[in-house]
Amino acid sequence: MTDILSALNWRYACKVFDPAKKIPADIWAQLEQSLILTPSSFGLQPWKFIIIQDQELREKLVPNAWNQHQVADCSHLVVMTVPKALSVDYVDANIARMVEVRGGSADSLHSFRDMVLGFRLGLEAKGGLEQWAKLQSYIALGQFMFAASQLGLDTCPMEGFVTAKFDEILGLEKDGLTTAVLCPVGYRSSDDRYAGLPKVRFEAKDVIEHR
Amino acid sequence: MTDILSALNWRYACKVFDPAKKIPADIWAQLEQSLILTPSSFGLQPWKFIIIQDQELREKLVPNAWNQHQVADCSHLVVMTVPKALSVDYVDANIARMVEVRGGSADSLHSFRDMVLGFRLGLEAKGGLEQWAKLQSYIALGQFMFAASQLGLDTCPMEGFVTAKFDEILGLEKDGLTTAVLCPVGYRSSDDRYAGLPKVRFEAKDVIEHR
Repeated sequence: MTDILSALNWRYACKVFDPAKKIPADIWAQLEQSLILTPSSFGLQPWKFIIIQDQELREKLVPNAWNQHQVADCSHLVVMTVPKALSVDYVDANIARMVEVRGGSADSLHSFRDMVLGFRLGLEAKGGLEQWAKLQSYIALGQFMFAASQLGLDTCPMEGFVTAKFDEILGLEKDGLTTAVLCPVGYRSSDDRYAGLPKVRFEAKDVIEHR
Repeated sequence: MTDILSALNWRYACKVFDPAKKIPADIWAQLEQSLILTPSSFGLQPWKFIIIQDQELREKLVPNAWNQHQVADCSHLVVMTVPKALSVDYVDANIARMVEVRGGSADSLHSFRDMVLGFRLGLEAKGGLEQWAKLQSYIALGQFMFAASQLGLDTCPMEGFVTAKFDEILGLEKDGLTTAVLCPVGYRSSDDRYAGLPKVRFEAKDVIEHR
């Protein structure tokens, strides 16, 4: 049995990465595969994960991320992006993939398709498709940080950035995508004083209730 | 090193739980502790996790969850709830907890407090506090499902429920909380034909981009 709690206790929001330490390719491959395996509502996977290692591009992003240097100093910067809408084509691409992996025909999935399209219309009417997609990307974020911690890697989830500037610099508009959240990954610097601080969480009685 | 990919490949959205199999107390304790350790924006932990084992209450929830019987048949039903607003008192409770765990004084955290309150006002003006809190709860959801899978437990994330009915039945209104997402946990039934289906995910080239 995995000691999941050791990894979660070791994890913290890394404030200073060691820019000299890069994630080995075999470790990164596992982490990338874990991203792909993230669960999502209806299995729709409404996301594209942009992995940035190019230093010039990362430096350009820093001022648009509240000058947080983790964006440039980490080993791999993960920018989680989501579609602003959820096109019928996207739903059909998902169904085509289901057929490809599981066999059968798209026709046999028509009731699933109807259900998803109905759900989509409901969300769209409330202006909530982008928000729904962002929620899904946070499932990815939660799973990803936990996976990284188990591989001995540090992360820092970041909501502090200028969405419009990120979208522009990364050229997301043409694909109908927008930036949801950032997650730099790498190795903590020995200079990061936050690494040694005790973790602050509410007591169980304050966040858990049994019925 | 943990084999994180085996757990993620084993995991699926459980459609039929074995109602006779209950999670042993020591395993559940680990999972509950993993919930408490979930990361969140500014460490604010905007959530209360309601764990329901009472059968009568669960049966009452089923019709308000699109008649999905996992709600009643799982071992533990986790209802992730979030505050509709984020009161100054809540922020101060967080700061008090920081002082309790790390020592020092609330005064020494005044710039952190100012930053959080500024962030809060910005979100509030956009009507986004509840949505922000929901995003945080999805970090919990992602981490929780992954933790469960590593402990050999099945989960089924659920967005299909009537929020107003859940809030009413659980009496959340008085605490300013609302239901964000459900996650039944337990053991898959041998009758669940979905357990044997190949997992459907887009190919890496469709969801991951390197720059």
